[in-house]
Amino acid sequence: MEGDPKLRLRVFDLNCWAIRYLSKRRQERIRLIGDRLCREGFDLVLLQEVWSERDYSDLKAKLGACCPFSHYFRSGVIGSGLCIFSKFPILDTLLYQYSLNGYPYMLQHGDWFCGKSVGLAVVKISGIVFNVYVTHLHAEYCREKDAYLPHRVVQAWELLQFIRHTSQAADVVLLGGDLNMHPQDVGIRLLRCWTGLQDAFTETKHFEGCEDGCTLVPNNRFTVKSELQPFPLGIRIDYILYKAGSGFTVKCEELQTTTGTAPGADIPYSDHEAVMATLHVQRTGQAAGVTPGTAVPALVEVLSEARTEVRVGLLAARRQRYSSGRMALLALLLLLLQAAAALGALAGLADGQPFPKLSFALLAFLALGVLLLATGLHLFHTIEVKMLQGTEEQMRMALEVLQERPGRS
Amino acid sequence: MEGDPKLRLRVFDLNCWAIRYLSKRRQERIRLIGDRLCREGFDLVLLQEVWSERDYSDLKAKLGACCPFSHYFRSGVIGSGLCIFSKFPILDTLLYQYSLNGYPYMLQHGDWFCGKSVGLAVVKISGIVFNVYVTHLHAEYCREKDAYLPHRVVQAWELLQFIRHTSQAADVVLLGGDLNMHPQDVGIRLLRCWTGLQDAFTETKHFEGCEDGCTLVPNNRFTVKSELQPFPLGIRIDYILYKAGSGFTVKCEELQTTTGTAPGADIPYSDHEAVMATLHVQRTGQAAGVTPGTAVPALVEVLSEARTEVRVGLLAARRQRYSSGRMALLALLLLLLQAAAALGALAGLADGQPFPKLSFALLAFLALGVLLLATGLHLFHTIEVKMLQGTEEQMRMALEVLQERPGRS
Repeated sequence: MEGDPKLRLRVFDLNCWAIRYLSKRRQERIRLIGDRLCREGFDLVLLQEVWSERDYSDLKAKLGACCPFSHYFRSGVIGSGLCIFSKFPILDTLLYQYSLNGYPYMLQHGDWFCGKSVGLAVVKISGIVFNVYVTHLHAEYCREKDAYLPHRVVQAWELLQFIRHTSQAADVVLLGGDLNMHPQDVGIRLLRCWTGLQDAFTETKHFEGCEDGCTLVPNNRFTVKSELQPFPLGIRIDYILYKAGSGFTVKCEELQTTTGTAPGADIPYSDHEAVMATLHVQRTGQAAGVTPGTAVPALVEVLSEARTEVRVGLLAARRQRYSSGRMALLALLLLLLQAAAALGALAGLADGQPFPKLSFALLAFLALGVLLLATGLHLFHTIEVKMLQGTEEQMRMALEVLQERPGRS
Repeated sequence: MEGDPKLRLRVFDLNCWAIRYLSKRRQERIRLIGDRLCREGFDLVLLQEVWSERDYSDLKAKLGACCPFSHYFRSGVIGSGLCIFSKFPILDTLLYQYSLNGYPYMLQHGDWFCGKSVGLAVVKISGIVFNVYVTHLHAEYCREKDAYLPHRVVQAWELLQFIRHTSQAADVVLLGGDLNMHPQDVGIRLLRCWTGLQDAFTETKHFEGCEDGCTLVPNNRFTVKSELQPFPLGIRIDYILYKAGSGFTVKCEELQTTTGTAPGADIPYSDHEAVMATLHVQRTGQAAGVTPGTAVPALVEVLSEARTEVRVGLLAARRQRYSSGRMALLALLLLLLQAAAALGALAGLADGQPFPKLSFALLAFLALGVLLLATGLHLFHTIEVKMLQGTEEQMRMALEVLQERPGRS
């Protein structure tokens, strides 16, 4: 098998920012994205934030000739936003929804409603099995005081566990998506360390595009400039990562990002820049894996750091569970008091009407509303505590297993 | 490697029915279960419905000597109820929560709150990698008119997909749990056909226990006799299933179920009977898989049947989404009308007070309550529709892939 011709694979990844009614000039941009994909003939196209099934169908119709195989991953109230187009048959798919994904009451952020997930598509190209993953993690709204960091770390952990457990029969693993993490953030170091995935940007022979490979840049007219103020060049949060299985090598020959506006238009494709990689895949004929394993101390270090973040989240979640529970209890007490007063009045114990009826009804209404809301919150934070505890426990177990293993460093 | 000594493995599986405040004589039964496990020294113990972490901790303390390794799978408001005890180190775990699991408003059934899931624990015994799965699917409350059948079929599909994708590096696959399906039900046929899992009860050389291997029997004092009326012998819904990977064979030497009361007590261990299997695992040294693949026509047939059930569920979910949406709209209209009337009264358009204030406030309160409830229901059924659609789509794709494959029959 040695000396097999190289397989050249072109991969496209983009967070399309296609939120119905909210994203600017959405349909026009979806058309532009479709045009580019048709023109360039990518082998694999990984898209995020395609929230409307109509947009997906439009793209599917347009890409029928160049990427006839596709899958739209459904989850949550408005979907996962994830989809994949492929020049080669998709043999199988699986969706894993992250157990934590923000808060339903943070309506202005809305991540909770999206059912953030990782989608897996198994694609066979020239006899080589590709496990292609596409994902989108919880957004970072404020880097200085990032309330969602523990949730994103849990998502990174679940992502890496999902990849590790499902990719064992794959010849090549590919992951594309908006990870909402800077290259040095704990979540991405955890993901890369524990899966052995390589970053196409740091590995590529040729790079062309935004400086430092940034994918959210101030020059893009749709980005929020104030959010990018601390980063004059922009930030790199969209990735194409890859890993060769036993008996294969993968090399990134070229990596590009989009820049400026789409050809023939006055707007860019999205508020994110697309990442486009040209990979060369080759059989080596050697049975042993070619990706060197990460040294145990490095694995331990990054996992301990991630575990600390999960613990911080656990403390916060416990506090919120406690305060919502207390609020529910107080509302229940108020309701009981009112019920007692009303019964007393009915039984003629009180001489006159203690309260005007309207205020009394409104107060009961308010107390009932608070009771329902606080109970809902309490249940929600109970789930949050459980999932954070579960992850913390899994991380502890992984550390134990690691520390019993002879070091490879 | 040929001629390696057989590995003898004793596996215990039980739905413990340990619901705090609800299950009768729970703590006493947990003690009895712990005693039996200590006495018999099983290698792997798979438990379901251990809802209280306190019960898990008690068992963990008791089994410290014979099964020092354990994991409790956390999910949902009150947990997944799943846990595993092992004589051998657990190297890794992963939890997959089913995307559909009943309805939150079916409080009397309560499955929704449990976060029904499948847990995976990777255990290495004498150099053999075991992927051990434990699960509990949605209960069947009324066999004649089973409203949860589509959800259970989706769960069976997700279970088999999860097993297929995560077990590729395993030498032996073991699944234990309360599947809430009779042996001939579509979900279990789907699961077995598509994974190649074998049923310990039908494969065993020696069987001892309840007639027909039933695990929910009328003789058990905790079972609901009216539910079992159509089945005088009881039903078999708890299983130990297994599959050998390439280069291995697994045989079930003996299968037992518990019967009657626990030794020295006047009660059984649970409302379910425990299933106990003695498996013999041996390396064959042959690289090829030993489990014959299911013929394509059989795979197509059972998948088509399952897909029909999912479609039936999809129709029902769409109807419910529509009617809850309509109800929300009506409540909104009523609220708007009231607001208009109130504004009219304030602006002095009406001569007198059109309604007594109290009734007016109560009506608004009612409308708001209905609006919130119906909106919540609408969102819930929207998710349900999405997940059923997603499964239906995956099944369609699997059928297409199958039909393009040359038949193996």
